[in-house]
Amino acid sequence: RVDSDRLWSSLSELGSVGAYHDSDTDLEGVRRLALTDEDITGRELVLGWMREAGLSIRMDAVGNVYARRAGLDDSLAPVLVGSHIDSVATAGRFDGCLGVLGGLEVVRTLNDHGVSTRRPFEVAIFTEEEGARFGTDMLGSATAAGRISLAQARSRADRDGVSVGAELDRRGLVGDQVVPMPARPHAYLECHIEQGPILAEHGTDIGVVRGVQAITWLELEISGRAAHAGATPNALRRDAELAAALIRVRLDEMVTSGDYGVMLATVGRHETTPNLVNIVPSHVLMTVDLRNHDGDAMDRATIDLHEYLRAVEERTGTTISVAVTAQTPPVHFPPQMRDRVAKAAAGLGLSSEEITSGAGHDAGEIAALCPAGMVFVPGLYDGISHNPREYSTPEACADGINVLLHAVLGLLED
Amino acid sequence: RVDSDRLWSSLSELGSVGAYHDSDTDLEGVRRLALTDEDITGRELVLGWMREAGLSIRMDAVGNVYARRAGLDDSLAPVLVGSHIDSVATAGRFDGCLGVLGGLEVVRTLNDHGVSTRRPFEVAIFTEEEGARFGTDMLGSATAAGRISLAQARSRADRDGVSVGAELDRRGLVGDQVVPMPARPHAYLECHIEQGPILAEHGTDIGVVRGVQAITWLELEISGRAAHAGATPNALRRDAELAAALIRVRLDEMVTSGDYGVMLATVGRHETTPNLVNIVPSHVLMTVDLRNHDGDAMDRATIDLHEYLRAVEERTGTTISVAVTAQTPPVHFPPQMRDRVAKAAAGLGLSSEEITSGAGHDAGEIAALCPAGMVFVPGLYDGISHNPREYSTPEACADGINVLLHAVLGLLED
Ligand SMILES: NC(=O)NCCC(=O)O
Ligand SMILES: NC(=O)NCCC(=O)O
Repeated sequence: RVDSDRLWSSLSELGSVGAYHDSDTDLEGVRRLALTDEDITGRELVLGWMREAGLSIRMDAVGNVYARRAGLDDSLAPVLVGSHIDSVATAGRFDGCLGVLGGLEVVRTLNDHGVSTRRPFEVAIFTEEEGARFGTDMLGSATAAGRISLAQARSRADRDGVSVGAELDRRGLVGDQVVPMPARPHAYLECHIEQGPILAEHGTDIGVVRGVQAITWLELEISGRAAHAGATPNALRRDAELAAALIRVRLDEMVTSGDYGVMLATVGRHETTPNLVNIVPSHVLMTVDLRNHDGDAMDRATIDLHEYLRAVEERTGTTISVAVTAQTPPVHFPPQMRDRVAKAAAGLGLSSEEITSGAGHDAGEIAALCPAGMVFVPGLYDGISHNPREYSTPEACADGINVLLHAVLGLLED
Repeated sequence: RVDSDRLWSSLSELGSVGAYHDSDTDLEGVRRLALTDEDITGRELVLGWMREAGLSIRMDAVGNVYARRAGLDDSLAPVLVGSHIDSVATAGRFDGCLGVLGGLEVVRTLNDHGVSTRRPFEVAIFTEEEGARFGTDMLGSATAAGRISLAQARSRADRDGVSVGAELDRRGLVGDQVVPMPARPHAYLECHIEQGPILAEHGTDIGVVRGVQAITWLELEISGRAAHAGATPNALRRDAELAAALIRVRLDEMVTSGDYGVMLATVGRHETTPNLVNIVPSHVLMTVDLRNHDGDAMDRATIDLHEYLRAVEERTGTTISVAVTAQTPPVHFPPQMRDRVAKAAAGLGLSSEEITSGAGHDAGEIAALCPAGMVFVPGLYDGISHNPREYSTPEACADGINVLLHAVLGLLED
């Protein structure tokens, strides 16, 4: 069994890097956007711990870290675990960090007991999983898996126009390990907080993750015409803000209609120009985040949304351009990996159930390279995440990492 | 008759203060927000011209300028003309400036012809007419007229928290003339670009302004809850962005329904927090600009909107707080002032028609102190305003100021 206190204190220490006071919740939140100073400080902290644990560290061309514990037969494909330590701007302490520090805790536990394993074991930290800074989620793992090219990944830029490539170069985060990964891992496992309400609602200890739902991110640029709010007759307006609102409301109708299964839609970003009380807005930049367990329903929703955009253009006299900034199909983890997780849970006397992930995860990308799976632990407060209220108990975290440990131990001896 | 070229070159010169390249229209626009460096530079330019024209200058406690040409009986109440030189962030060269520089052109014309007048003549520059920086339109003239207290006016703050009072003090714009004006002017006249399509559409030279429609500005703070865009079931969301969109669409329905007469509604400002693609927004700040020729219909619309806000709170699980940042009832200019304008136009061989102003104007405030009226000149391109495309021809501008001159000449001899 892993050391629950040690795991918890690592989570707390990393959670203090990028801490800020969240006025909304009056709690201490985490803001550690990818490749910012806070993210670098977090990396240094974790890399220090990894070195202390005797791991040898390599980095790839997109800043993903692989910390390796040698195997008895070090030529065998490694068992990989991992996740990310970057965060959104209003984060808690668990999202991603539990997977990385849980992997470290597995290493520490193996070290404590002097356990040697047949296969090598690696713990990965993937770059910009959140997509919160550069606009594409799972950027690092998607590059490692070859779904996104290195050039594409490097060219993604934040709102100030700073590119991933420029930040990697400036921060010295271009390692010598090539992307995509030339040799496939034997298997990949990731432990993560559920970020949803299901496990807590059911009182289940462990989620055996079936797969990850499809994700589509769109960036819409709506162009209308700035005009006087008092003197411009309604018929002469080309109101970008009205167009944006019509789209947002339509997305809500699509979600609640049930026509697209269990569809989710979020407009998370919305910027209005010139943003003055008495001017009809000329521009709106808005993002659309669509999720669906069903890939076909996602495709239909995307097509129908595009059709509606044309209708909004017509109705409002605006023009709307669309960029797809992220798009992942539904991912299904193989039954044998789900089995390993379920059996590890059962062996530890923990209850488990199968669950599909609402959030995107690095495991969904690495699944393209090797058998992959995930272990979910319940979160409190309806499983709220991307919010400082995100919380998983020390016991739940330890349960998840114990399951990870036991599933990994089996894989390491394959 | 006024000197059309001189008027035009003054408009052009002032229009170059705060000039910026507008990427939307690919034109040079004007950005001269109240009490910014650009506004101060504009004031200095115009005050220089006023001094050259022999005017004596006083300022009041809210930075309104009164430039005076003595009368033969200087103890009589002056005839006042004026407007503003502050602008919105995406302005043209005419809004406000035509009224101020037109007043100056009247002085220059009187000087050229050595005309002495019975009453004194004053040209006013009112502070923050646009409301674009400090959130309340007609701030200076409303303070001069006593509708807003000096303390209220000074306490209004911009988005960075800088108050009107702090800017006035820092810029040395606190004059010794008290507010509200202790002595009422004999009459007030203001020439302004129409900022709407009607005169140009009808081919009419001059608009005789009937009055100004009612204006209500609201600032809504919508509070929901930040949550994960992929992992949060729809039923658990408190989406501030959805709430904002529902309100915007409802405003459109209210406008197009015709239930509130000729109502206009604009959401000009919209700021989303935390403004990230995969986070359900926790907050939206949005402004609502409502206009109506009919005060009762405005009241009904405001009440119905408030009722709808409660329904949106219920539906979305958000809370919405409302601040009224500006509110003016419909203003009706007295028939004798409309007559003066119509007769001056007729005397100059110009066609005219009565028209109600869609935009708020300083004349609407000064109307509380003395008989007030306005002269509108047509704008091209559907009368577009608050946009660099705003344009009135040199001939139209001169026509308007000639009407102002002749109406003023009559008033000065009353
Ligand atoms: N786990 C997680 O929050 N991933 C970020 C990508 C997403 O938006 O789902
Ligand atoms: N004339 C003008 O644009 N005034 C600004 C106040 C308003 O929004 O109507």
